[in-house]
Amino acid sequence: MTQGDAPAIDQSLQTVGTPCLVLDQDRMQRNVMRLRDRLDRLGVQLRPHLKTAKSVDAARQVMTSPSGPATVSTLKEAERFASAGVTDLIYAVGISPDKIERVLALRAAGIDLAITLDTVEQARMVAHASRAAGDAIPALIEIDCDGHRSGVLPDDRLHLVAIAEALGNGASLRGVLTHAGDSYNAIGDDALRACAEVERVSVVQAATILREAGFACPVVSVGSTPTAHFAEKLDGVTEMRAGVFVFFDLVMAGIGVCAIDDIAVSVLATVIGHQPDKGWILVDAGWMAMSRDRGTAKQAIDQGYGLVCDVDGRPLEDLILSDANQEHGIITVRRGSTAALPDLPIGTRLRILPNHACATGAQHDSYHVVRSGSDRIDAIWPRFSGW
Amino acid sequence: MTQGDAPAIDQSLQTVGTPCLVLDQDRMQRNVMRLRDRLDRLGVQLRPHLKTAKSVDAARQVMTSPSGPATVSTLKEAERFASAGVTDLIYAVGISPDKIERVLALRAAGIDLAITLDTVEQARMVAHASRAAGDAIPALIEIDCDGHRSGVLPDDRLHLVAIAEALGNGASLRGVLTHAGDSYNAIGDDALRACAEVERVSVVQAATILREAGFACPVVSVGSTPTAHFAEKLDGVTEMRAGVFVFFDLVMAGIGVCAIDDIAVSVLATVIGHQPDKGWILVDAGWMAMSRDRGTAKQAIDQGYGLVCDVDGRPLEDLILSDANQEHGIITVRRGSTAALPDLPIGTRLRILPNHACATGAQHDSYHVVRSGSDRIDAIWPRFSGW
Repeated sequence: MTQGDAPAIDQSLQTVGTPCLVLDQDRMQRNVMRLRDRLDRLGVQLRPHLKTAKSVDAARQVMTSPSGPATVSTLKEAERFASAGVTDLIYAVGISPDKIERVLALRAAGIDLAITLDTVEQARMVAHASRAAGDAIPALIEIDCDGHRSGVLPDDRLHLVAIAEALGNGASLRGVLTHAGDSYNAIGDDALRACAEVERVSVVQAATILREAGFACPVVSVGSTPTAHFAEKLDGVTEMRAGVFVFFDLVMAGIGVCAIDDIAVSVLATVIGHQPDKGWILVDAGWMAMSRDRGTAKQAIDQGYGLVCDVDGRPLEDLILSDANQEHGIITVRRGSTAALPDLPIGTRLRILPNHACATGAQHDSYHVVRSGSDRIDAIWPRFSGW
Repeated sequence: MTQGDAPAIDQSLQTVGTPCLVLDQDRMQRNVMRLRDRLDRLGVQLRPHLKTAKSVDAARQVMTSPSGPATVSTLKEAERFASAGVTDLIYAVGISPDKIERVLALRAAGIDLAITLDTVEQARMVAHASRAAGDAIPALIEIDCDGHRSGVLPDDRLHLVAIAEALGNGASLRGVLTHAGDSYNAIGDDALRACAEVERVSVVQAATILREAGFACPVVSVGSTPTAHFAEKLDGVTEMRAGVFVFFDLVMAGIGVCAIDDIAVSVLATVIGHQPDKGWILVDAGWMAMSRDRGTAKQAIDQGYGLVCDVDGRPLEDLILSDANQEHGIITVRRGSTAALPDLPIGTRLRILPNHACATGAQHDSYHVVRSGSDRIDAIWPRFSGW
């Protein structure tokens, strides 16, 4: 389907129902090759985070093999990707007791699913469940590298060793994992490189503490799209998790990780009205189609709910989706710009680049796959949601 | 199912997978009765907006009859509710040419579906399509009562008459419709009453202009949840559209339209970690479960991503979901509060009230229906999404 040799779907970006989600597969493939090449040079395995795409078809384009490795943010993702042949998975959100049964069921089906935790309480629960099931669940200890979310501090020897010991009583320690969440607030190459080095040093320190205490710690996992693209060395790291790089978005462009024309997903919309006195063009893509994500609001360039392009994906000068109701989007010229509001008759098709690909994707049940510069829909890739 | 006499689902709020969406049907029924009683006294028909619930089961609780009337924001809603027996519908988003075929198909199936528009360009297009199909599509002219979105100004006689004339050439003028979007920014009873009166006067003025010009204008439609609850008179108005009133949410509580304990939907979450040094409790409900809506950010009380309650739905003192990643929620005590962070072990179940019921609902594929104060799940009501 993705090579253009399958039967064409009899729809184009001019005829398909709007709003809908469009995926430029040329841009996606370019994004994937860029990161793969980079990680090959750094000698680290890519374990893509599939929470962005939530699509078996897209996952196959981004994983280095049909069986993985990959990262997931929900057990539903684990179950769906496992059904599609992915066997090497990390569930990268802290485990709770109610989720163990689904973890064990996937493992019993032959999936090497590892879980994540950061407390002795969780380690004891996982060890207990492992013993009861006769299956040593592999666990990664989450490390807090930048105060952003969950995790053990990288130099908290007491806590690290206590978790490893609790796991040892039935479960197994697979390694350590961190996420440089703060890199999303960094701007500029130097700041991004610094985030990447903080991320690396943190997990390597934690792994060293565990090894010195006598615990094998085979996996040392880092990951965020900004640090994946700015790390200068990854010594001591075994794998890189990254998700949004496959599509990129305006937030990533705003912090300098990609260019606007690397952004592979957009929302196709139709003009439904005008308020000429106010300089508004109304479209049928509101926040339901774009998501409520306003991730660029705090950046140097606030893109509103999205950057407006023509149907071929070329940005229209300083035109943004500046406000949104549930099913109405309001397009205006960006504040401070002298660009003229273009004449876009009712029925005109536009493509709107999103602030945050993960959030916008979640509002849609499929990708309409096109080549760069073509309005022919070559394939429709289903995506899923829920838990 | 909703009366508690159907076979119980063998799940409770303590055992069901999280995150998930919970609906307290006692609160919902109370909210519905409150508005019905109000509109009965004001002598105006309720045409509920089904874009909030997007569920056939919920729609049946809120409509005054199984066949409607009702309002929809997408043609998918129109199609789904039509399949479930709703025959009297308004599609309240401006029409574009690509959507006419689906409108005509529903009308050919016997559904009295009216559309909305605010330009001569649309009116000509609808008249042309009506002639071609031999079906006079009924259209409402949208009126802009408060500069908030789309619509013709209420005193713009030239424009109103031109649209009516263009429609007359094959389609039919059903009436006028407005939405006091600005009421979401009003605070306090006086401001809300003023919004309601502006909304009323605007459509009545437009209807009067059209009637004086010789056009019948049978429907005079207003609607927003705040104005529906604060209008003191609705003379000249024939129907009230409102959506979020069925569930209410923190934004509505913040502007004084409901109390916190009127809010009928919440997200059930499980504690997955702690960062005691930071005063954080982590749960498995991030923005994917809550939506990215931060509608209370501009209100007097910023509720973060939601207000945290115990599993029975009772608010915990000053506890909010202050930040969110995709699948991680961070619970803290509200800034400035002296309340203590409660001791909530891993595995604890919580319910989180949303900023915006429409946005949070859209992140979920079903409602888990409970009675107030009970943790037994009496029914699961599917909800749909997409266009």
